[in-house]
Amino acid sequence: MASLTAGNRRPVRLADIAKAAGVSHGTASNVFSRPEIVREEVRERVRAAAEAMGYGGPDPKGRLLRAGKVNAIGVATAEPLSYFFDDPFARVMMAGISQACDATGAGISLVSAANNEQLAWNIQSALVDGFIVFCIEGGSRLVELARERKLPFVALDLDSEDGSVAAIGVDNIAGAGMAARHLTDLGHRRFAVMALPFADNRTGLVSAEQVRAATYAGTRDRLTGYLRELSRVGVDITKVPVYETANDVASTKAGLETIFASDTPPTAILAMSDRIALVALEWLSARGLSVPDDVSIVGFDGVPEAAVSEPPLTTIAQPIAEMGRLAVRAILESDGPVSRHQLPVELIVRASTASPRG
Amino acid sequence: MASLTAGNRRPVRLADIAKAAGVSHGTASNVFSRPEIVREEVRERVRAAAEAMGYGGPDPKGRLLRAGKVNAIGVATAEPLSYFFDDPFARVMMAGISQACDATGAGISLVSAANNEQLAWNIQSALVDGFIVFCIEGGSRLVELARERKLPFVALDLDSEDGSVAAIGVDNIAGAGMAARHLTDLGHRRFAVMALPFADNRTGLVSAEQVRAATYAGTRDRLTGYLRELSRVGVDITKVPVYETANDVASTKAGLETIFASDTPPTAILAMSDRIALVALEWLSARGLSVPDDVSIVGFDGVPEAAVSEPPLTTIAQPIAEMGRLAVRAILESDGPVSRHQLPVELIVRASTASPRG
Repeated sequence: MASLTAGNRRPVRLADIAKAAGVSHGTASNVFSRPEIVREEVRERVRAAAEAMGYGGPDPKGRLLRAGKVNAIGVATAEPLSYFFDDPFARVMMAGISQACDATGAGISLVSAANNEQLAWNIQSALVDGFIVFCIEGGSRLVELARERKLPFVALDLDSEDGSVAAIGVDNIAGAGMAARHLTDLGHRRFAVMALPFADNRTGLVSAEQVRAATYAGTRDRLTGYLRELSRVGVDITKVPVYETANDVASTKAGLETIFASDTPPTAILAMSDRIALVALEWLSARGLSVPDDVSIVGFDGVPEAAVSEPPLTTIAQPIAEMGRLAVRAILESDGPVSRHQLPVELIVRASTASPRG
Repeated sequence: MASLTAGNRRPVRLADIAKAAGVSHGTASNVFSRPEIVREEVRERVRAAAEAMGYGGPDPKGRLLRAGKVNAIGVATAEPLSYFFDDPFARVMMAGISQACDATGAGISLVSAANNEQLAWNIQSALVDGFIVFCIEGGSRLVELARERKLPFVALDLDSEDGSVAAIGVDNIAGAGMAARHLTDLGHRRFAVMALPFADNRTGLVSAEQVRAATYAGTRDRLTGYLRELSRVGVDITKVPVYETANDVASTKAGLETIFASDTPPTAILAMSDRIALVALEWLSARGLSVPDDVSIVGFDGVPEAAVSEPPLTTIAQPIAEMGRLAVRAILESDGPVSRHQLPVELIVRASTASPRG
């Protein structure tokens, strides 16, 4: 790392300024920390000395140690940092988080890591008042690390089976159920599920055992919601292919290749994210398959891109930005463990769904 | 702010762990900071003690003070933090910045403020190894504050008249000249300029005096590039309306209202950002004016949205993500003042430009 200032021999200290201005160390300190209690004439003298000597103000690290807080929210993900700017869901969430931070003047520290070792270090060393943890992937490990820091934290996905984690999210089982119900009501009986990750670093068709061992509660809950609703109308759910993607272009396309290689391809796709659904729209169009004439698709999230896709996407909308704003307030206003909030989802019907062909 | 852990009486300290494990304070410290130099048996004993007593590792603030660095890049703007996630140019830039941080495991601290007081405090207290300063608005003040911190910093816009500021950017004069030249080559002679801000908190038609007093060098340079090229083909540049926007929807629409209220409306618009140009496309379409049949538009930036607009936008593309990656490397690898880098721009001709009618 660079020396702080090229050419400076020894950093100018507050004591040097106090001496040059002929005031006590305490008075000089007050000029920078509580200027309103210092007489204007003295204040000007100290500031002039500071300027003449190239003193940039008290060391913020020292100030931090005294104050015990940093006026910043940590936002953590096991994905690369670029996820926050590339992923449609993450972008809307971050817009909500940043709006809430803007309202209180707080900064945002983005924390990530390519591997678990680096992640642990980054979480342990981030200088923040609390963490918002993106649980889409790498969830449990992130929650564990955030807990170890003993700072307030909130996960951005509710686990239906573990009420002990402070979290903000939607009822994933009910939301997924609404998506499946919409398609069964239209008359569909041949389905495929394009899933978010159940665990790390794995894609492909998933077995019932892998679902039971899922690390990511949101994924497991959405699948539960889908299958429960399909069972209700008599679909044999052991025959419904469930393809686990990495929520990216490559694994989604690989999954569609697999699913549409079947002799009895689905007439309807249940996609666990709008991102997966939007990739599917492109893939199907390139294959000469019409949406919704040949295949219907329902996404999940309600990102802005889903409203302007070709065709516009039917989806389960989460109040994404509101979840982000709520998470910031939960941390900044917390004076104890952060609690759990469940927000409503809604089915938005657009042009990607219709009854299957005769 | 919350107490760190609800229910904890006194935080467990490293000294407690050392005592419980029967090792010196120095050895216990090494287990957390330099585990490779501690014998495995001792390491395990100390870690077991730490786990049993609920010790979360050394205080990162203390570690920070000793190491003198934080493994984080500060990214500062005078806009609200939501700018980083809402604005198309900022998003691409942040994607580049985050990719470069991902490559080295560094975190990102986003710094902003609604007003100058808050901004100064936030810049002074951010715990980072250096600053990347978004100079689109609030430029000079941000540069001043970053300089006062005496940390490496780099501005994301080159000032053609001030070579003293460490910066990465494009030749704004040349880029704007290419945009104007493209339109004059097509035969246009009636122009309007939709400008980025020249100074803070002001929108409307700008005078030559206001241009000379511009705070934002990039805006001034782009206007210079446009007008120089228009002069060259004999356009009376004193008659070319220059409307200063806030690079947002409302002020851009207000500017278009003003400009198209004229008896001799322009056949071509020079927009200083793609964001302005994209708003103009919508506004013109809503007015029943065809692009490019009635009006041609050239943007500036080359954001992804410009490739898929209706019609796709002719623009001056900057290597935005590359600028972001370069800025991170300039700071992390700097061992002195960061220097200046000028990157190439290119004219990308799409469907928003054509020869004027008859």
